Amino acid sequence: MNAGPPVLVADIGGTHARFGLTDPGRATPAVTDVRAFATAAHPGLVEAVRAYLAPLAVRPRLAVLAVAAPVPGDHTPRPDATHAPSTTRLTNHAWSFERHGLQQALGLDAVHLLNDFAAVAHAVPWLQPAQLPCLHGQPPMPLQGPVTVLGPGTGLGVALLVRQTDAAWQVLATEGGHASFAPLDDTERTIARHLQERHGRVSNERVLSGPGLAQIELALRHARNPAAVARDAAAILAAAVAGDDPAASAALARFFAILGSVTGDIALLHGARSVVIAGGIVPRCLPLLQQSDFVARMRDKGRLAGWFDDLPVQVVTHPQPGLLGAAAVATRITASMPGR
Amino acid sequence: MNAGPPVLVADIGGTHARFGLTDPGRATPAVTDVRAFATAAHPGLVEAVRAYLAPLAVRPRLAVLAVAAPVPGDHTPRPDATHAPSTTRLTNHAWSFERHGLQQALGLDAVHLLNDFAAVAHAVPWLQPAQLPCLHGQPPMPLQGPVTVLGPGTGLGVALLVRQTDAAWQVLATEGGHASFAPLDDTERTIARHLQERHGRVSNERVLSGPGLAQIELALRHARNPAAVARDAAAILAAAVAGDDPAASAALARFFAILGSVTGDIALLHGARSVVIAGGIVPRCLPLLQQSDFVARMRDKGRLAGWFDDLPVQVVTHPQPGLLGAAAVATRITASMPGR
Repeated sequence: MNAGPPVLVADIGGTHARFGLTDPGRATPAVTDVRAFATAAHPGLVEAVRAYLAPLAVRPRLAVLAVAAPVPGDHTPRPDATHAPSTTRLTNHAWSFERHGLQQALGLDAVHLLNDFAAVAHAVPWLQPAQLPCLHGQPPMPLQGPVTVLGPGTGLGVALLVRQTDAAWQVLATEGGHASFAPLDDTERTIARHLQERHGRVSNERVLSGPGLAQIELALRHARNPAAVARDAAAILAAAVAGDDPAASAALARFFAILGSVTGDIALLHGARSVVIAGGIVPRCLPLLQQSDFVARMRDKGRLAGWFDDLPVQVVTHPQPGLLGAAAVATRITASMPGR
Repeated sequence: MNAGPPVLVADIGGTHARFGLTDPGRATPAVTDVRAFATAAHPGLVEAVRAYLAPLAVRPRLAVLAVAAPVPGDHTPRPDATHAPSTTRLTNHAWSFERHGLQQALGLDAVHLLNDFAAVAHAVPWLQPAQLPCLHGQPPMPLQGPVTVLGPGTGLGVALLVRQTDAAWQVLATEGGHASFAPLDDTERTIARHLQERHGRVSNERVLSGPGLAQIELALRHARNPAAVARDAAAILAAAVAGDDPAASAALARFFAILGSVTGDIALLHGARSVVIAGGIVPRCLPLLQQSDFVARMRDKGRLAGWFDDLPVQVVTHPQPGLLGAAAVATRITASMPGR
């Protein structure tokens, strides 16, 4: 079967844009020729794509772009899908682009956009066991749905994977990071009050993200020193991993405890039979997560504790799940094209 | 097309069991010969079914029973379905029964069990517009998924309806009523503390249910009179509807405000494009819900308020959605049987 030229895939965040190629005729998606570009180094996405393609002897006709921006619906063929807005603006960077403009400027037949966290969810069914270490329960073989996928990083991504009648997986993108935070003890009420003074309303994302880790650390130090100032989240994470910074360790321990509670709540609300944790923070400190209160807090749901006995929780350690997910979407789009 | 004898459908709660018949060959499910029995009047389900069928000149060969008890999976044909446990015990009543035992005792070819709130969710796509008055937004025609279905009653039911590739609806049963309650102001923190003293942990169901309404009312009166004792939830609801009982009115107003916040959070976590509210409480006081802070609190999600602009919220006023849902499941089971 000739699947035509490779498909351009991308994972476009606020700081970096990562590009790769995928052969959409493969039975299992894979990405080659991965290169990362600093978004600040290029005036726009068209220029970055041209810089990526220049040294390569390929002319893609389809691009599947995962972007750190709201994209209504997701663009795999499903009955609930809606069309992308004509202009997409990146959440944390000045790049903005319009789907048809991209298509014309890059000489492509089609451009598909999807949210970057939805792309991560699309990758989950294709990950190998070694890329999904198990934190709780027995890893399901094959994956059992519904699957709650959540990922603390720049924000808190939440998606749901549902098995369809034809055995394909459907990704439901959600705005679940914006659901209200439920503090469960005095320390968490202190953190919630600290965040409420800054933001008015406290969503789970205000706590369970890089900026949230920095605010947890600050709120805990404020209790002893009202003049304390915020530290960088990456520095807190690195210090907690190094193990020589009690304030950083306490903040990350609390972050994981809260992540456990929120994971349990979301799994209950999704009727999940599997949970997968992705995002930029957890893979960098997996041993600390394993030693944390995560599992105890996830299960701490009164009469429902036993419900979690058979709920496997796995962590995505694949370095580029967004690119792999874009490749999985490319395969589905290509398979559903007329004439194939 | 000869669909064979009618199917027995039932909605079996702690206090009443309702029975009916459905012709599974109909294009749209419908239930006839509805009769309610007090569960206390019969030693077991077999005796109640015999009492129901005795005056009827039909011999069903299939029964679809919605029960107020945990039933893992739901029993429409879907890839995620699991088998029912061999024994089902009603949550609030002494009846317990075993699927194969029922089948033999009643001379049936098959018995299908599903959770009663999952049955309500199965009914939603079959409700007429007049049975789904709209509380917010424009009613979608046809229904747009994912649909969050939630229902405060004896407990707080939460389910998710997802459209499949073949356009059929898949019901995801959840345990979402047990997710943690997030109090949003001092009054709600008082209610949460009141409930925590009684139950240790405060789930949404502890607040958003009949017993929850009684505890909200008690917590609000406790603030003025520490010796106050609890009133019956049905009496509070009736008094609030009559409008001559400020304590009852204040409790129901707070109940609806919290229901709005929780509905918004669940819709965000489900990535919902429609919300449907069912359960025993809301249809009895729909005008009070319409006058309440429900919509304002649902939308009060900071940057995400605009996300709710196009999210329709409808209320189930059909008197027996559980029976209708069981009939919808009967139609699907019959259609998927070999030889048809």
